[in-house]
Amino acid sequence: MVRANENYLKLQGSYLFSEIGRRVREYRALHPEAEVIRLGIGDVTQPLSQEVIRALHLAVDEMGSTDTFRGYAPDLGYDFLRETIALNDFKSRGCDISPDEIFVSDGAKCDCSNIQEIFAADSRIAVCDPVYPVYVDSNVMAGRTGVYDSGAGRYGGVIYMPCTQDNGFVPDFPQEIPDLIYLCFPNNPTGAVMSKDRLGEWVAYALKIGAVILYDAAYEAYIAGDDIPHSIYECEGAKSCAIEFRSFSKTAGFTGLRLGYTVIPKELSARGVSLWQLWARRHGTKYNGAPYIVQRAGEAVYSEKGREQVKEQVAYYMENARIIREGLAAAGYSVFGGEHAPYIWLKTPQGTDGWTFFDTLLTKANVVGTPGAGFGPAGEQYLRLTAFGSRDNTIKAIERIRQL
Amino acid sequence: MVRANENYLKLQGSYLFSEIGRRVREYRALHPEAEVIRLGIGDVTQPLSQEVIRALHLAVDEMGSTDTFRGYAPDLGYDFLRETIALNDFKSRGCDISPDEIFVSDGAKCDCSNIQEIFAADSRIAVCDPVYPVYVDSNVMAGRTGVYDSGAGRYGGVIYMPCTQDNGFVPDFPQEIPDLIYLCFPNNPTGAVMSKDRLGEWVAYALKIGAVILYDAAYEAYIAGDDIPHSIYECEGAKSCAIEFRSFSKTAGFTGLRLGYTVIPKELSARGVSLWQLWARRHGTKYNGAPYIVQRAGEAVYSEKGREQVKEQVAYYMENARIIREGLAAAGYSVFGGEHAPYIWLKTPQGTDGWTFFDTLLTKANVVGTPGAGFGPAGEQYLRLTAFGSRDNTIKAIERIRQL
Repeated sequence: MVRANENYLKLQGSYLFSEIGRRVREYRALHPEAEVIRLGIGDVTQPLSQEVIRALHLAVDEMGSTDTFRGYAPDLGYDFLRETIALNDFKSRGCDISPDEIFVSDGAKCDCSNIQEIFAADSRIAVCDPVYPVYVDSNVMAGRTGVYDSGAGRYGGVIYMPCTQDNGFVPDFPQEIPDLIYLCFPNNPTGAVMSKDRLGEWVAYALKIGAVILYDAAYEAYIAGDDIPHSIYECEGAKSCAIEFRSFSKTAGFTGLRLGYTVIPKELSARGVSLWQLWARRHGTKYNGAPYIVQRAGEAVYSEKGREQVKEQVAYYMENARIIREGLAAAGYSVFGGEHAPYIWLKTPQGTDGWTFFDTLLTKANVVGTPGAGFGPAGEQYLRLTAFGSRDNTIKAIERIRQL
Repeated sequence: MVRANENYLKLQGSYLFSEIGRRVREYRALHPEAEVIRLGIGDVTQPLSQEVIRALHLAVDEMGSTDTFRGYAPDLGYDFLRETIALNDFKSRGCDISPDEIFVSDGAKCDCSNIQEIFAADSRIAVCDPVYPVYVDSNVMAGRTGVYDSGAGRYGGVIYMPCTQDNGFVPDFPQEIPDLIYLCFPNNPTGAVMSKDRLGEWVAYALKIGAVILYDAAYEAYIAGDDIPHSIYECEGAKSCAIEFRSFSKTAGFTGLRLGYTVIPKELSARGVSLWQLWARRHGTKYNGAPYIVQRAGEAVYSEKGREQVKEQVAYYMENARIIREGLAAAGYSVFGGEHAPYIWLKTPQGTDGWTFFDTLLTKANVVGTPGAGFGPAGEQYLRLTAFGSRDNTIKAIERIRQL
């Protein structure tokens, strides 16, 4: 008789953003007149750039004509896109990544959650606390964790690495030895960044213990400083110990268009098994390629005009980040991040817990943030705000919070 | 120290279509002058219909304007599409399926391969032989099978249900008791269909033994007869024992656009655990929705004009199927399928094995088929041809085969 995957039953409540959505819907049902501003979920609001729109229209026309119609895309992505990515995102920064080490997909969330499949079922994972929930939840579903300890706010069997004000929200090496280490920098949710030297130490550590670093660089476009690495492959030795995830969502506003990619160097192996080959096999068996029109849109992001236009979008959001950061600091709040990342990590006043502060902001200021507790117990007294709102809404939201 | 998922190492050779691609590339490299016609992989060749193209352009323009831009799609799909699907694909056929039982995705291949995740790791699976390799391979990767027995051409632990000329390519109930039963009708690769009575017997069988049927109806648009069910939910009781997969790939030429959906009735459970809830959780955690523009394209398929246009496409391919079926039969070949499905299941002459016949067709007639052995040992003396070529190429290919 059929049985369900009972690991799913270990998962806590709804997925974070679904829970936020539910609370906002309930509030709006009771207060239909309220003008709620969402600075919670990390979704962009600026339209796609003109070059991207142009590329989409052209590709759509190709799909409407027998001579230029495209059916199934190559499993791993079209060469035109893989070559453009290798050149612009890696070779230009001195990273020796070749086009066939790039796996095009429909987004970093899928890749980040699917990547665990190619590793042994009893792999030990290490994650930051706070952390993007997808890393943990995908491993819970796969049975790599124990049950949830609601007192500790943590799953058994997972190695948590606290990221606090004390360590500048950059984790220390854990006491226990992990097999897989999830790192995300610029960080979601704290907005923290890691220097190249520090990331180099992590690479050396992973090489020493024989672990693989799963490096989520979805926010690299927001890096403003010169000494902050955009890719883990800027660090020597990373090709032997790291997989990197990239996304067009925040770089170019593709949250509703869906495009990302994963880099697996050919030389990366686990006890002699090529991880490149396993991931290629997974793509071939369980995936059918990103849509042609979306891959052409991705290519347009790297054109001269496209690049200028997405830079303007990033600058727009970073000006929002500045408004949030400086406005809240001036009002006496402790704020972190928002300098090389679209996220501001706001300390709740007087030790309020994050969900309570979330409700206060929702009901008193009609502003939606994301409670830090949703990312882990070390986030309990924090709230994440995002820079992805419109300028007007961002200014209005900060004004309202200052008047609380 | 990190270890790979060693279940992947049980997988045999390359994924079927990659292997075919390799052989064709090698042949073309040696014979660049050869005009190779591909009737192998099930990829469409007709361009997207005008209504779909129109909807894509409109949606692209929406994405380029602040007022109409859409970011993240709802995890489970936009209501406009789910409602249209429920109405047109189910209610119109008397199936009581509601919009929120429809999970929109980027294609049936992903859904078919991911669905096994929500079931227990030790579930026993039953598959037809021959079978679409994705059902088996996704379970091999998840560790639900033993090793591959190259003599038998089968994985240990899997219940195979032979589909042969004797049973009209419709499986008998297996001797052993499965937890999960994969059925695909109209069938890939044999082109066989199942009558409503027979499918009703399968539903009754699944209910009796407490199994779930995973019903792949990706080719339902090709059904020509009245007594053949388009959906398993046309059978009484199916809502308590079946999940159905649908695809826009073959219905409307979306192989390169990527859109499909899965139906999980709310009442479907496994020992009291709602499978709807597990799949919704999976979507929320590991997926980020199909692109808005593609969902609008899907909606356009159901408009009055859209429906007419995709019907014409299906009719075009089915005329190809007739040409293949009748042409080969007239030349003395035994052929099956191709009446309610875009696949023709061709018996190899004089008991040749399928890969040998594949090579003969490739090198002597420059026609690419798919060797039946790639779908399982019961397909060893067969070759699958598809109706998805252009009319000219289809006529030319059959002419060449007849002259062999």
